[in-house]
Amino acid sequence: MSAKTKIAILGASGYTGAESIRLVMGHPNLELKALTGYSRAGQALEATYPNFTGYDLPPIQKWEDVEWSDIDAVFACLPHGASQETIAQIKDKVDCIIDLSADFRIKDPDLYASTYGRPHGFPSLLQNAVYGLTEYARNDLRGADLVACPGCYPTCSLLSLLPGVEAGMFDLSSIIIDAKSGVTGAGRKAKEGLIFSEVSDGAHAYGVASHRHAPEIDQVLGRISGQDVVVSFTPHLIPMNRGMITTTYVNLAKGVTFEQVKSEYEGRYATEPFAHIVESVPQTRHIRGSNRFVMGIFKDRIPGRVIIIGVIDNLTKGSAGQAIQNYNLVRGWDETLGLKHLAVFP
Amino acid sequence: MSAKTKIAILGASGYTGAESIRLVMGHPNLELKALTGYSRAGQALEATYPNFTGYDLPPIQKWEDVEWSDIDAVFACLPHGASQETIAQIKDKVDCIIDLSADFRIKDPDLYASTYGRPHGFPSLLQNAVYGLTEYARNDLRGADLVACPGCYPTCSLLSLLPGVEAGMFDLSSIIIDAKSGVTGAGRKAKEGLIFSEVSDGAHAYGVASHRHAPEIDQVLGRISGQDVVVSFTPHLIPMNRGMITTTYVNLAKGVTFEQVKSEYEGRYATEPFAHIVESVPQTRHIRGSNRFVMGIFKDRIPGRVIIIGVIDNLTKGSAGQAIQNYNLVRGWDETLGLKHLAVFP
Amino acid sequence: MSAKTKIAILGASGYTGAESIRLVMGHPNLELKALTGYSRAGQALEATYPNFTGYDLPPIQKWEDVEWSDIDAVFACLPHGASQETIAQIKDKVDCIIDLSADFRIKDPDLYASTYGRPHGFPSLLQNAVYGLTEYARNDLRGADLVACPGCYPTCSLLSLLPGVEAGMFDLSSIIIDAKSGVTGAGRKAKEGLIFSEVSDGAHAYGVASHRHAPEIDQVLGRISGQDVVVSFTPHLIPMNRGMITTTYVNLAKGVTFEQVKSEYEGRYATEPFAHIVESVPQTRHIRGSNRFVMGIFKDRIPGRVIIIGVIDNLTKGSAGQAIQNYNLVRGWDETLGLKHLAVFP
Amino acid sequence: MSAKTKIAILGASGYTGAESIRLVMGHPNLELKALTGYSRAGQALEATYPNFTGYDLPPIQKWEDVEWSDIDAVFACLPHGASQETIAQIKDKVDCIIDLSADFRIKDPDLYASTYGRPHGFPSLLQNAVYGLTEYARNDLRGADLVACPGCYPTCSLLSLLPGVEAGMFDLSSIIIDAKSGVTGAGRKAKEGLIFSEVSDGAHAYGVASHRHAPEIDQVLGRISGQDVVVSFTPHLIPMNRGMITTTYVNLAKGVTFEQVKSEYEGRYATEPFAHIVESVPQTRHIRGSNRFVMGIFKDRIPGRVIIIGVIDNLTKGSAGQAIQNYNLVRGWDETLGLKHLAVFP
Repeated sequence: MSAKTKIAILGASGYTGAESIRLVMGHPNLELKALTGYSRAGQALEATYPNFTGYDLPPIQKWEDVEWSDIDAVFACLPHGASQETIAQIKDKVDCIIDLSADFRIKDPDLYASTYGRPHGFPSLLQNAVYGLTEYARNDLRGADLVACPGCYPTCSLLSLLPGVEAGMFDLSSIIIDAKSGVTGAGRKAKEGLIFSEVSDGAHAYGVASHRHAPEIDQVLGRISGQDVVVSFTPHLIPMNRGMITTTYVNLAKGVTFEQVKSEYEGRYATEPFAHIVESVPQTRHIRGSNRFVMGIFKDRIPGRVIIIGVIDNLTKGSAGQAIQNYNLVRGWDETLGLKHLAVFP
Repeated sequence: MSAKTKIAILGASGYTGAESIRLVMGHPNLELKALTGYSRAGQALEATYPNFTGYDLPPIQKWEDVEWSDIDAVFACLPHGASQETIAQIKDKVDCIIDLSADFRIKDPDLYASTYGRPHGFPSLLQNAVYGLTEYARNDLRGADLVACPGCYPTCSLLSLLPGVEAGMFDLSSIIIDAKSGVTGAGRKAKEGLIFSEVSDGAHAYGVASHRHAPEIDQVLGRISGQDVVVSFTPHLIPMNRGMITTTYVNLAKGVTFEQVKSEYEGRYATEPFAHIVESVPQTRHIRGSNRFVMGIFKDRIPGRVIIIGVIDNLTKGSAGQAIQNYNLVRGWDETLGLKHLAVFP
Repeated sequence: MSAKTKIAILGASGYTGAESIRLVMGHPNLELKALTGYSRAGQALEATYPNFTGYDLPPIQKWEDVEWSDIDAVFACLPHGASQETIAQIKDKVDCIIDLSADFRIKDPDLYASTYGRPHGFPSLLQNAVYGLTEYARNDLRGADLVACPGCYPTCSLLSLLPGVEAGMFDLSSIIIDAKSGVTGAGRKAKEGLIFSEVSDGAHAYGVASHRHAPEIDQVLGRISGQDVVVSFTPHLIPMNRGMITTTYVNLAKGVTFEQVKSEYEGRYATEPFAHIVESVPQTRHIRGSNRFVMGIFKDRIPGRVIIIGVIDNLTKGSAGQAIQNYNLVRGWDETLGLKHLAVFP
Repeated sequence: MSAKTKIAILGASGYTGAESIRLVMGHPNLELKALTGYSRAGQALEATYPNFTGYDLPPIQKWEDVEWSDIDAVFACLPHGASQETIAQIKDKVDCIIDLSADFRIKDPDLYASTYGRPHGFPSLLQNAVYGLTEYARNDLRGADLVACPGCYPTCSLLSLLPGVEAGMFDLSSIIIDAKSGVTGAGRKAKEGLIFSEVSDGAHAYGVASHRHAPEIDQVLGRISGQDVVVSFTPHLIPMNRGMITTTYVNLAKGVTFEQVKSEYEGRYATEPFAHIVESVPQTRHIRGSNRFVMGIFKDRIPGRVIIIGVIDNLTKGSAGQAIQNYNLVRGWDETLGLKHLAVFP
């Protein structure tokens, strides 16, 4: 009998699924017991991910076929929409579900409906879910049974903004987030627009003024500040695999100085295990494969404005890494368990 | 006796030099007569650029050794600083010099000195030089003998902003330019920070709040608007060879609508041969190797704000292509001569 | 009435289609009159290829809807299999068809069937088609009405081998071709295995000992040498857009020296407009976007063996460029017409 | 007092140095006590490698300043030539030196001199060094005080060939190794030929018939087979960071069948922790950051010939990972200690 916690990963064939597998396999307290998929059910994982060849992993099966009595907790890496359907059905069978999809991120069912183009199927679950931006959710995570991990863009944007927002240091009507993401952020989909020759050696914006992560960012900033917030948010696709930058422009509130803001951030993140402030300009490649958020804060040329540059690995801190970190906290474990991977650079 | 105009390219071994060679070789009215370089003087060009192997090109020589009586016009692709020194010495020997360096872009000698960290050596030449942002310089270009081609970032930023600025449609205190450039923008330099493994598969900002192209942008916006302008400007390095995006955020002036702005832009660029407005989001790869500036204009989520996304190939429209376009206008030729290259995609 | 030759391009939405459009648009004697596609019929080309935005191009239509009386010649860029079906139906409506697919490359219907897994539908057309490896087909091309352009791998491999094979200088049982191709060689297909994150920052072989281009290479070597030839051929996928290298290893025939071989190659290619021998090691990036085949020939460490390294742009000399070159010869024009593009480097 | 073994890493600023640091930091029995460098002495490591920011690491110092009494073992990641000089001076101060340079790989001083263009300075040390191709060196490694880690190309080539060579199954005069490497293989050097725009989006061979790893491969094949062996070896540079493929072509010895060879390989590697045979075609990206060698073996189209495709991460199994594996064996530890990193894919 294993003393380890038994984990099922739903949606093992996507990139967040694969990253979850990598992290669970390296976690001292977790044991990978089940992998699910739909079109690939019955296959070995290594048929999709040869990087897992030779490890003794469970085969991909349909979630209906999982022996749930043998599972303690679930990492759900399903597409948006499909996630809530499945979670509703297995919710009572396991102790905790960590959802990496967008399905439980937006608390207001109306906002969910307008953002995702369909009503939420399980509003009561929605109310229950803890929004797992780890550094701002520790109190709620302990013992939670449903955790909604933030989107990758919200993670990087919010960690860049929240210390200043919490301290009332920013003009909240002035927030502009210019984001750049690697291609894994789009998932593992056979889409013409994602093939190598369409996204390499070039760059472009997408989802201009309409990306679904913007309302999610608004919601959290609003909750923390107690004000209505609307951010400007423009993501760009960059020819790299992993990694994300958010370059955030914001005006200081009246009477606030740059030095005060910097000092506030340094204080807030001084003891965080995975949020770091550097004097240099952070680069995505230096946190590749690690669970770190790294940021720099800079005085703009325009007086009264600051520029905050944050980077994460979208698959790790922006998804599966934050999921593990959250589950560690759900269980009351050291939150760095299984997450000490150094960046793989170059 | 050749009826073609005889051209010398100074600084043939850099990337703007190489792009100038490519474009001059394809120009019906131009003949490449001399190439200069310092450390590579005496070598064939193909030792540095094997892509030019087998064409009958002049060898690289020191500029002092050029037979200037045989040269009509010069494209100067020298490093900043070196350019003014050389230009001052050959100025009277040729009809026209098109300078691709930064040396004659900033009109105010004090601003030049503070931006480039040294006084300008030839302030009288400075006053004389035409700032060759082609679409806004046609009247001045005709017959000019010294043309300063704009930097790549200013070209893309200014073409994105000027129609609205000229029409008084923007709040000039609100301009934020978030720029992304390919690696050729850094030139052909043996620097550790530019080697493949340091810049591939990742992205980062640089020159935050301190890039030398910001004062150049300020200067032109100030001249056109008649007001003092300070922009926020943050460039990022992207793992691609050629190409640049500027994502520009600006508030509308009071009473101005998005539709009015869009219509103003469409009118302004309707007949431009190399400036185009598209409904979709422009991508750098779709203008790779061409002289096009392509932009889209979008309503932000925040009311009263617009997002303008512009792309150019930094080596073509951002440098050597604009140089040729300018020279065509100096001579009173069709400005598209030698510039009809279609983008090479994929 | 236009004096230009009117061209239809079948299969405009694939990469060889797009490259054909680029080259036809720059050809002084050709006029683009029709573009065909199936799923995109009715759309503007720029919806698929924004790089063609703003040029006055015909819309995509179904081939059945083309006004064939208005077309002189056709470049067929259709998928293998579909090509022969369509060509059979339009064959009598136009003067000449240049086929860029694999459908008419293999002369022997049995070999075709075993290679492509189905019998050829039009064996009589097959016999008629000229195999358009330009440098070895000039006599047959003049006036031809159906030309089968070679595959990209065969083009690069055969140009690397044929001068020596023709001169009887090689041991034909010893040929090993290790090939590396950019991702555009796989076409514009929404396949999971082609998305950026699956093919960037890594490399792999594919089609080991089973690639369909191997029998095509055998066939031509056999025809030229008069012997049965079986080559070893292993292609690899490389994270670049365009470009291909073939590294070919072959033993010299008894009594033949390296110097004799080198001299034979230099003589054979001395006057070729698009086949060049260099002393340095050729790089794909230096011929990007051009119609050049560039090769180097080297003495191996193992006595009696040579290494021939050839590079082409798979979309240009390996496909659409060679197609144009062939059509120039069909018409008796200068074969370099419309093909003088310099490489776009960097 | 620490029970861990205290490690110094010489040459911390190169890529093999950085990879050694990553692996030592994750090793349960090792403690990083000193880092050396020359031009960067006095700096924090994070000034060169921001990926190590925030970890408590020793500063870079000159090797002369290291407190050697406090060091148990050394990983020497110095440039070739410099390595032997330094090692000769510290040899008696530490228990064991694992050398990652080329200085102790070639046993024969004459071959060393002709390969590296200078006589070896310390031939007696040379005789003493264990050639650490781990899977073929276990008996010699136990207790060794100087280990020469193989080059990356030899590691991948030899692991591909040795099971068949050892069993006498190959015609040793027929070996052709066509290799492809990522750019980190060239090290962290400010060379023009390594900057992004010179090596991205393209590929090329280099060191044709003259690469220094070829004599190293010959030497080991000769030692194992008891015959003189000369291989054909052609490396290519591929636009990826990490990873290497060797595609090896070899004729079977008389009477040997493909099935026998395959079975021999499967037997030989069945219990190896880091050498794996797969049925599919291995890809470098699937072993990125891990210590795995993965290979496939295929029947060629030419009867009697096999194709062996091997992949490693050049910085891990091809350098720092193999170094750790060797040191584990020197100490009699489980050889997988500190090396269980899963590949980071995508």
